[in-house]
Amino acid sequence: MKKFTASLKTVVAEGKGMKKSISKPAKERLIQLVRLLEYVQSTEDLTVITSADIEVRTGWTNATVRRDISLLGVNCASTAGYSISSLIEVIKEVLNISMSVKKACIVGLGRLGSALLEFEGFACSSFTIAAGFDSSVNRTEILRSPFPLYPTSRMEAVIAQEGIEYAILAVPERSAQEVAERLCACGIKGIVNYTSVLLRLSPQTAVENISVIDALQKVSSAL
Amino acid sequence: MKKFTASLKTVVAEGKGMKKSISKPAKERLIQLVRLLEYVQSTEDLTVITSADIEVRTGWTNATVRRDISLLGVNCASTAGYSISSLIEVIKEVLNISMSVKKACIVGLGRLGSALLEFEGFACSSFTIAAGFDSSVNRTEILRSPFPLYPTSRMEAVIAQEGIEYAILAVPERSAQEVAERLCACGIKGIVNYTSVLLRLSPQTAVENISVIDALQKVSSAL
Repeated sequence: MKKFTASLKTVVAEGKGMKKSISKPAKERLIQLVRLLEYVQSTEDLTVITSADIEVRTGWTNATVRRDISLLGVNCASTAGYSISSLIEVIKEVLNISMSVKKACIVGLGRLGSALLEFEGFACSSFTIAAGFDSSVNRTEILRSPFPLYPTSRMEAVIAQEGIEYAILAVPERSAQEVAERLCACGIKGIVNYTSVLLRLSPQTAVENISVIDALQKVSSAL
Repeated sequence: MKKFTASLKTVVAEGKGMKKSISKPAKERLIQLVRLLEYVQSTEDLTVITSADIEVRTGWTNATVRRDISLLGVNCASTAGYSISSLIEVIKEVLNISMSVKKACIVGLGRLGSALLEFEGFACSSFTIAAGFDSSVNRTEILRSPFPLYPTSRMEAVIAQEGIEYAILAVPERSAQEVAERLCACGIKGIVNYTSVLLRLSPQTAVENISVIDALQKVSSAL
């Protein structure tokens, strides 16, 4: 196993050069695959998984699964299938999914933002929510939360102090662009955008839009 | 303008044959572009927009914008730019985004599901929420909602009766797969999945995952 890990690093290093050839849909599947593998690892007594088994669990054809995994540039298959722990390690390494905990904050604590306050999924992810912000001091004082809540006026100070790198944006549409620019200015690396506003930001800040309307459009116009 | 529309239909018909060549990222941008164009149309006094203008508003390079639009197989550009109304029409036609209203339902009215009850974005979309479902009758009786709420036991009957085609799934993780299978069995065409469970469904039902954890992973491993 040690030997495998050693050789893994070399191949992953080469694999990194190939990053650009992993398409966005493939990357999305690989990110979901890590989640599936971690789930399987924690709930079932399996150490090896086949592409056929992944097909049954995800609905992606096993050819797609094998092709996605081949994009990682590492051979982690044996005749019995893929080693689950190696596959998790390789995907995280190549896609730069750090195992270290990253800090994120929630900006905007209306119905949607506050729904995330009790979201249990963060616990088993590599993200921890370090703060929540809302322009209404009333709201930040009344809401119950497992992490501290602050008025938005203190956003820059708290982000710097806590070393927060990522933000979940759930403010009203009219203030989305302005708040996103403030997050950008204090060095936030990535924003998960729950508003339906298309944000215009410098390329240093990655944005991922989570719009229920866009998602409905996608399923209703599935090609 | 009439003449343009007439010729448009012919080209769009040809364009339809090209559907498969529109990649998923391009399709996602085009869906967002429609939303942007409709927003511009309703709030500004513009009838024409250039790819450079779209670049400023979205952050996509204008080469990307022009390439995405060229995939539609229709020339809706003039020297002054793209006609906003024609571009909206062409994208909707090619991507099969119907202008007719489609019915959706929300399944699971916990914090996240109930946060969607007051989401104003549905009003200016081509979707209408026709029903909400929850396993707790207490919850369906207490929650205020602009549309009727029912116990999950009545889901199949209400979906058939109302002609609901799409579902937003926001149930607890443990019941996600089972509820999704029930939705699938009563002919739901597409599911927007807010749970972090990877659903295994027949290919007849399109699934779009909206997971805040996946979105955070994506922005933190932006290639």
